[in-house]
Amino acid sequence: MLLRTGRYLVSTLQTRNASNVSFIGLGQMGNRMVKNLTSKGQEVKVFDILPAALNSAANLKGAKLCNSAEEAAKDSNIVITMLPTGDIVKETLLAENGILKGIPKKSLFIDCSTIEPKMAQELSKISKENNIRYIDAPVSGGVTGAEAGTLTFMIGGDPNDMKEAEPVLNKMGGKIFHCGNIGAGQIAKLCNNLILGITMIGTCEAMNLGIKLGLDPKLLTNIINVSTGRSWSSDTYNPVPGVMPNVPSSKGYEGGFSVPLIAKDLGLAEAAALSCGTPLLLGALTHQIYRALILNGYGDKDFAVVYEFLKGQNK
Amino acid sequence: MLLRTGRYLVSTLQTRNASNVSFIGLGQMGNRMVKNLTSKGQEVKVFDILPAALNSAANLKGAKLCNSAEEAAKDSNIVITMLPTGDIVKETLLAENGILKGIPKKSLFIDCSTIEPKMAQELSKISKENNIRYIDAPVSGGVTGAEAGTLTFMIGGDPNDMKEAEPVLNKMGGKIFHCGNIGAGQIAKLCNNLILGITMIGTCEAMNLGIKLGLDPKLLTNIINVSTGRSWSSDTYNPVPGVMPNVPSSKGYEGGFSVPLIAKDLGLAEAAALSCGTPLLLGALTHQIYRALILNGYGDKDFAVVYEFLKGQNK
Repeated sequence: MLLRTGRYLVSTLQTRNASNVSFIGLGQMGNRMVKNLTSKGQEVKVFDILPAALNSAANLKGAKLCNSAEEAAKDSNIVITMLPTGDIVKETLLAENGILKGIPKKSLFIDCSTIEPKMAQELSKISKENNIRYIDAPVSGGVTGAEAGTLTFMIGGDPNDMKEAEPVLNKMGGKIFHCGNIGAGQIAKLCNNLILGITMIGTCEAMNLGIKLGLDPKLLTNIINVSTGRSWSSDTYNPVPGVMPNVPSSKGYEGGFSVPLIAKDLGLAEAAALSCGTPLLLGALTHQIYRALILNGYGDKDFAVVYEFLKGQNK
Repeated sequence: MLLRTGRYLVSTLQTRNASNVSFIGLGQMGNRMVKNLTSKGQEVKVFDILPAALNSAANLKGAKLCNSAEEAAKDSNIVITMLPTGDIVKETLLAENGILKGIPKKSLFIDCSTIEPKMAQELSKISKENNIRYIDAPVSGGVTGAEAGTLTFMIGGDPNDMKEAEPVLNKMGGKIFHCGNIGAGQIAKLCNNLILGITMIGTCEAMNLGIKLGLDPKLLTNIINVSTGRSWSSDTYNPVPGVMPNVPSSKGYEGGFSVPLIAKDLGLAEAAALSCGTPLLLGALTHQIYRALILNGYGDKDFAVVYEFLKGQNK
């Protein structure tokens, strides 16, 4: 009987060890994700290279601040990263006092950052060479979803690794999709955000046109939202100030999903499209519009601010 | 008491006269709208300049086929048009045997065509000069909505005229919005379809990218539909064959909303935007993409066929 229980033993071991979690990258997303982990009873060793970001977790019961990724990863059987770019994830993995220096063999490395699908494959390769397991697990839902613990996780990698990650991911989100092999989570994320960027600008163009021609913004929104122009950008995150409460457009385009972040995702989508010879006609222009906005004073605003750009400034 | 019942008398008169309805333009939309009118007990005098279109109503109980717009409009207190362009509506109004020759004074002319907002104002002016009333009442919902009697009407003009139109419009649709003055219905319609055209191409680009990179189309759709990329184009009218049943993409892109029709609406949106100096960055490119599709063999297909164009042909 013992011979046949290897699988069961591993499973027990994983359940026990799941309490050893570390989280690296405490930015707008990461610090909220850690808040949900700790508030739901998960102890977490945390690290961020920026002291201010690291200190955001100082008052969280169950969060242990560490001095390096190495220290955070030590004794952890699950290491989560939420970082700005693929290069930074790679650096955090390989650095002098990086993750690989601390993480125990066979542990699970979960990267929640949005990065190039090809970089995800490279990180997987490095992980494998170092006898640790890797899945890509980018999220959708943004800062609001991170705060509420309702993120959607898009997973690429071994389904068993995903299963092992689920109890921890469930503390930060509502839905978990297995998308395919390593990198597939990133691909799904980029596809979604490609539509998001395009649809948001389309909604801004149409709302601006209608308002300039005399329509009431709320009336136009109501019409669109029961018609074929309906989308998340119109019915949940309307870009026109005053149409909806509690969205960035009604708060001076503060908070939310910044222009540089959507521009980054659109750049990744373009690179991915280039890798397989796939045309992105609106995607390419959408990317360039957001790039131009960054250079024209909109770099710290929510991405719905394109409405203000189209409307023009009263000078 | 009699002195104070003028309003009541008018109202009674309108209710009685509402049974005198004529409908001009029996194309893909018009013939289905007439079908709903007659099936709900509304007698209609109908006309179309194309004999085949006119004959589509030959077997409808309650539809009386006429030989001209003049003949149809005669004795009608409500005349409805559903025609391809603003110029055609104007011609149908002013022609030798056109609407104005037949329509009784003070009757209500309801134009359901999608036309330039400025043309709507011109038609209103001509109507006023001829002592008839005019509202613009373009629809959303397409052929499916026309068939099911669930169209949305977007009204520009006098609210009292709209009220008079409602009992008749309700037989063809579910929702009626008063958008503002003459032309405002057209503006709302163009704004909605501007978003529609853009979002459809964005959805096609992202679905194509994800599929080329190995994602399952249904899985990707499921992810998008619970994420920020969600829209009518993804969750109701998905452009990828096989993802949803009973949509044009799953039926060889037959039926539905043809490429020339969305191109027409996008051209009208561009003209409207030009009239008020409003930029349409994605809208302009979207228009041009559909124009290019018309010239490359997609002119008789549903507008979701842009997916097939982006995917490329196996040659």
